[in-house]
Amino acid sequence: MTGVLYGVGLGPGDPELMTLKAHRLISGARVVAYPALAGAESFARSIAAAAIAPQAREIVMEVPMTTARAPAQAAYDRGAAEIAGALEAGEDVVCLCEGDPFFYGSFMYLFARLSGRFEVEVVPGVTSITACAARAGMPLAARNERLTVLPGPLPEAELRARIEGAESVAILKVGRHLPKIRAVIESLGLAGRAVYIERASLPGEAVRPLAEAPEKAPYFSMILLTKGADPWL
Amino acid sequence: MTGVLYGVGLGPGDPELMTLKAHRLISGARVVAYPALAGAESFARSIAAAAIAPQAREIVMEVPMTTARAPAQAAYDRGAAEIAGALEAGEDVVCLCEGDPFFYGSFMYLFARLSGRFEVEVVPGVTSITACAARAGMPLAARNERLTVLPGPLPEAELRARIEGAESVAILKVGRHLPKIRAVIESLGLAGRAVYIERASLPGEAVRPLAEAPEKAPYFSMILLTKGADPWL
Repeated sequence: MTGVLYGVGLGPGDPELMTLKAHRLISGARVVAYPALAGAESFARSIAAAAIAPQAREIVMEVPMTTARAPAQAAYDRGAAEIAGALEAGEDVVCLCEGDPFFYGSFMYLFARLSGRFEVEVVPGVTSITACAARAGMPLAARNERLTVLPGPLPEAELRARIEGAESVAILKVGRHLPKIRAVIESLGLAGRAVYIERASLPGEAVRPLAEAPEKAPYFSMILLTKGADPWL
Repeated sequence: MTGVLYGVGLGPGDPELMTLKAHRLISGARVVAYPALAGAESFARSIAAAAIAPQAREIVMEVPMTTARAPAQAAYDRGAAEIAGALEAGEDVVCLCEGDPFFYGSFMYLFARLSGRFEVEVVPGVTSITACAARAGMPLAARNERLTVLPGPLPEAELRARIEGAESVAILKVGRHLPKIRAVIESLGLAGRAVYIERASLPGEAVRPLAEAPEKAPYFSMILLTKGADPWL
């Protein structure tokens, strides 16, 4: 009997925003796996820390700090091989994923490597976009409104084209792309509707009008643009 | 001391996909509020049922089955007034919301009516889009990919234009709009990449290629279109 691989979403950061199912699976896990940016604490592990059993075996995937693909791919190759070994030995493995595993999550790299050979169950989690909307008091979409999710690293021209034709917009992975994104939003005359959020649901959370966003934004920061009025009344 | 209004996301349907925070707030609530389509059981209440204390007071907002706005607005006016009465009497009120309160959720109607006068806290929940993606085994978006969320009732020409320029697409509220949506996707040559999902995470769940979708789809059904290949490897 081979084990089952669980890809478990942990939500945006507040441990209380993990699901009951995530909590049950993590608490009962004999093997947990998670990525960690090389040299840094794993954000995913920090969310789940209180639920992990002291005797659990931990498989850490050290992902190098680079935008090059090959070194990250090699890290996931090694992680997948170690996880496969545990699954083949009949152990279930619970992989910890900040946010939701299939929404810009690194679990996709393991899913691509292992789902053909092993049973995989994905447990969805609260995404950063609804967590940010909740903290900013900004409803994302109602009725027949559209929502567009854009990663901040997209080229300026593409951001402009996608924001211009959109209703509600969530821009993820803002980080060092903040000046570019802000310039696009300002040039479209939409700055008054844009809110900047960092560390949603975590200590040090910040929610500000885009005009008051800091010069240096962390990678996990977001800009929300919504229709502004109260069209749902 | 007035009470606090909590808008609590319950996730897509499986009670285990509610967050620890939602469970704590509901379990401790002396007053819960929720919408119910007139004459039917409340879906939101059914998700939370096991957590609601037997002695809790329940405020039911009976929403009429119509696409006309005025009757629904009147129902939320009445619900907001009853909730305001409880808040003014110093009671906290926990409003139950399927999915996430700010993602196509009816809590927005209460938020618009009450957030100016009372303290409101929104607790995000797992949305149907990541729940459907998990059940379909379809990663939604990785790296710098875009995700577009479209309600199925949009006019055919707009659906076509939005799908044509998109990467990953989630189409919500499919229901009786299924034939129109299917025709658009087929005419764009994308049917092979499209999956139909109904009742994700609930008994009776169905996940099928779009070509095998039923003639009659329930309101809470979805079509996911993703890039298909494994660009994240």
